[in-house]
Amino acid sequence: MKIIIVGATGTMGKHLTEAFRKEHEVVTAATEGADIDVDITSTESIDNMYKKVGAFDALISTAGPTYGGPWKKLTDTEFRKGVEGKMMGQINLVLIGQHYINSKGSFALITGALTHDPQLNFANASAANGAVDAFVRAAAIELDNDIRINAVSPTVIENSPQYFPYFPGDIPVTMQQLEFGFRKAIFGAGTGQIIKPY
Amino acid sequence: MKIIIVGATGTMGKHLTEAFRKEHEVVTAATEGADIDVDITSTESIDNMYKKVGAFDALISTAGPTYGGPWKKLTDTEFRKGVEGKMMGQINLVLIGQHYINSKGSFALITGALTHDPQLNFANASAANGAVDAFVRAAAIELDNDIRINAVSPTVIENSPQYFPYFPGDIPVTMQQLEFGFRKAIFGAGTGQIIKPY
Repeated sequence: MKIIIVGATGTMGKHLTEAFRKEHEVVTAATEGADIDVDITSTESIDNMYKKVGAFDALISTAGPTYGGPWKKLTDTEFRKGVEGKMMGQINLVLIGQHYINSKGSFALITGALTHDPQLNFANASAANGAVDAFVRAAAIELDNDIRINAVSPTVIENSPQYFPYFPGDIPVTMQQLEFGFRKAIFGAGTGQIIKPY
Repeated sequence: MKIIIVGATGTMGKHLTEAFRKEHEVVTAATEGADIDVDITSTESIDNMYKKVGAFDALISTAGPTYGGPWKKLTDTEFRKGVEGKMMGQINLVLIGQHYINSKGSFALITGALTHDPQLNFANASAANGAVDAFVRAAAIELDNDIRINAVSPTVIENSPQYFPYFPGDIPVTMQQLEFGFRKAIFGAGTGQIIKPY
C-alpha cells in the first residue's frame, strides 16, 4: 500500500513513518526535511504534492498548527493559525486529494479531545478540531469510489511533556496507542469515524 | 434586559425579534434593514456595531451564511463562505463582544444538527457548525465576569420548506421550539451548552 504521511517530520509523523515503513511504501511530506515539501495552508502546494506522488492508497495527516495561548490575547488574527492550518489545511488535503487517491483509498486526519473536552488556552484548537470532526462525518457520505475518511483524536501525547501542565489529569496517549488509532483508520473498514485511541 | 439580535432580518431573526421585544429592549442588527448595519465577516464592522449599541446583556446570533451545493463543486473557495460567515463571523462576535457585554451577560449562537448528522450538499455547514460547537464549549471555561455562552442547534426549520428535500425524514423544528432554545440559552443558567430545541 502506498501511504502519504503529511507532517512526517513532527513527533507523531516520525513515529508513524517508522512504523508503517516496515510494511508499506511510505512517502513523507512536510514543510521541509521530508521526501516532498508541502505547505498545507496553500492549495497550490497541496496540489503540487499530489501531482508529484501520483496515485496512492492512503493519506495520513498529523499536521495541525493551531494557536495556543491566553484567551485575552485571542483575536481573529491568532485564530487564523488553526483555521488555515489544522482546519482548512486538512480539509483541503481531502478536497484536492480525492482526485488523486485510488478507489478504496482512505484519508486519516488528526483531530483531538479538545473538541469535547476544552482546556484553557486552546479554544483555537477546539474550534479547528470541531470543524475537522464534523467535516469527516460529512465527507464520509459524499466521497465516491469507496473512498473512506476518518480522524484520530488523542488527548495530550506522551512525547510532548511540555503540554502536560495544560491538560491536568489527562492520561497521555502513548505513541503506540496513536499508531493503533491510525491503523484502525487506514486498515479498518470504517468511515466517518472519530477514533479515540485510548 | 438589553438584547442584540444579529441576523434580525432573517427567518429566525424576525421571529425572535418579535418574541423578545414584548419583554425586553431589543436592538436589531443585520447587513441591511435593521437598527444597525453589521457585516459579521468584518471585525471592524462588528466592533462598530458594539460601539454603537454600548453596554448590553445578551447577544443572539442567527447569522449563519454557509455554502450549500454539490460536493463535486466544493473547493477551498466555496468553503470560505461558511468559514468567514457562520464560523469566524460568530466567533468574532464573541471575541470582540466580550469587551462590551455586561457582567452575567450571555451569548447565544446558532449552530445545527449537521455537526453530528450530516446531509449531502452541506459539508461546509457541518464543519462551520462543528467549529462553533467546540468554540462554545471552550469559550465557556474562558469567559470572565460570569459571562455565559451557548449555542442553539436546530435541524431544518419549519419556515424554510425549500430545504426539506435535503433533510429527508428530519422533523422540522418549529419557530416556537427555536425560540424556546434561545430562551434557555439566554435566560437559563447554563453555559457551554449546545441546546437541541426538539
